[in-house]
Amino acid sequence: MSSMPDSTHLSDSVADRVRRSFDAQSMMKTLGASLEHLAPGTCRITAPILPGSRQQQGFAHAALTFALGDSASGYAALTLMPDDSEVVTTEMKINLLAPAQGDRLVAEGRVIKPGRRLLVTQATVWAEAGGERRQVAVLLGSMMPVPL
Amino acid sequence: MSSMPDSTHLSDSVADRVRRSFDAQSMMKTLGASLEHLAPGTCRITAPILPGSRQQQGFAHAALTFALGDSASGYAALTLMPDDSEVVTTEMKINLLAPAQGDRLVAEGRVIKPGRRLLVTQATVWAEAGGERRQVAVLLGSMMPVPL
Amino acid sequence: MSSMPDSTHLSDSVADRVRRSFDAQSMMKTLGASLEHLAPGTCRITAPILPGSRQQQGFAHAALTFALGDSASGYAALTLMPDDSEVVTTEMKINLLAPAQGDRLVAEGRVIKPGRRLLVTQATVWAEAGGERRQVAVLLGSMMPVPL
Amino acid sequence: MSSMPDSTHLSDSVADRVRRSFDAQSMMKTLGASLEHLAPGTCRITAPILPGSRQQQGFAHAALTFALGDSASGYAALTLMPDDSEVVTTEMKINLLAPAQGDRLVAEGRVIKPGRRLLVTQATVWAEAGGERRQVAVLLGSMMPVPL
Repeated sequence: MSSMPDSTHLSDSVADRVRRSFDAQSMMKTLGASLEHLAPGTCRITAPILPGSRQQQGFAHAALTFALGDSASGYAALTLMPDDSEVVTTEMKINLLAPAQGDRLVAEGRVIKPGRRLLVTQATVWAEAGGERRQVAVLLGSMMPVPL
Repeated sequence: MSSMPDSTHLSDSVADRVRRSFDAQSMMKTLGASLEHLAPGTCRITAPILPGSRQQQGFAHAALTFALGDSASGYAALTLMPDDSEVVTTEMKINLLAPAQGDRLVAEGRVIKPGRRLLVTQATVWAEAGGERRQVAVLLGSMMPVPL
Repeated sequence: MSSMPDSTHLSDSVADRVRRSFDAQSMMKTLGASLEHLAPGTCRITAPILPGSRQQQGFAHAALTFALGDSASGYAALTLMPDDSEVVTTEMKINLLAPAQGDRLVAEGRVIKPGRRLLVTQATVWAEAGGERRQVAVLLGSMMPVPL
Repeated sequence: MSSMPDSTHLSDSVADRVRRSFDAQSMMKTLGASLEHLAPGTCRITAPILPGSRQQQGFAHAALTFALGDSASGYAALTLMPDDSEVVTTEMKINLLAPAQGDRLVAEGRVIKPGRRLLVTQATVWAEAGGERRQVAVLLGSMMPVPL
């Protein structure tokens, strides 16, 4: 499920740690999400807009958009952590820019400020329909390292 | 699914409109969520922490916490809208206060500032374990009315 | 300037520490702000809407509203800290609810979740005109303890 | 005070409107702020860290950082508005990344999503000390057009 062909700049142990954590999140499976790309301080996660992930008008539910953007942010942060650490989201703000209409969502997260006590992250989420992609959300949040 | 025994202060047409919208969100079904209470400007939504709604440590995923808090906020706003309106979330911030550990989550949303162009909402989310409840998140966001 | 007649439930050393920190903020003097009330986990700060604190329509500038709400949040957190600690704001969101029109602003901050690594705070800001007060903003943020 | 040498891509009437609004904000004068650059959808505002703009450790007060970031966001939005419109901030989140230590602050705001009912903006704030600049904050917020 998590092929991650582009994780060449990450050590294998970091990539393994991120993939194990991702695969252990049952919510990611429920939403059909895949970890597509990892590099130091960045992460891309995608998911189809499944029949069970919709709001009342048939678009992707904001909870799906949030789930992907928040997870891409968290795993971007986790690539920068030592082996014995996890991260948890302490706060996350999402601005929804357009209806999340299409076939799938793509979320890219990156660390904009690393830190020993907090990492500040940003993520962008696009909806893809046909060959087109449209930005549907931006997220700005904080990740806190915690011992594994 | 949405029994809403306490919606006595809402007109039937408003309660029906909210319930129809809620029932049309496939994501709410995927998460097992129920609309438990509606009153003018407030809404309570609950969900069990299903096996498929978890993060890597087995607690409720932040996306579940967000989904319930955001939806409780939005439906609280919808109770104040005229019949020909929907609302959409334009932005939502969540502060996560504690691991969402337990059997189910309870989210209560309320409108703290109604308005013709934007409604500002706040929500609290608790995790229940045994008979105990613990606050796990607070959300502050904005809802925009849109024509149905 | 900081009379604080209601700080009866705080130890003198905590009240002194907060007052010293407040008095050392030249920005608070520039804005004419006063520390009006302190109790464990809460703080009230007020300021007149000075001629030099206005936006283009003559109302209080959002930076004044933010300054008071953020400071009331921070000092609410500081009342819960040990003697050798300060706090710094790591993030703060403000929702502006109405034009800040009137004679003065009143900001009340409180800690909604204490913690060793982060404290989550909420603040409300009102504008007073004549004898009336109107809520103009709500803030939700995070404070991080730092060694003094 | 607002020389704006780089506003070549803006019509004179838009540049004039922004400058008039900026000059009418007494808070900007109190903080010593200057409108340095305007282009469609972007704005740069700077201010010295005046003796009266400091927090208890002598760094720039978060209210100064917020004031510049929020104003740069708002004026970035105003460049995209028709002549008979103003904008007001409806919500703004700031993440503070580092102590704002130095001689002056530089804030750059830009519109990341224009819209008829809301514009979503982002701003970055740097502190300059000697010839060095360090990012001290990022802001993500919403602006609402209002009739002049």
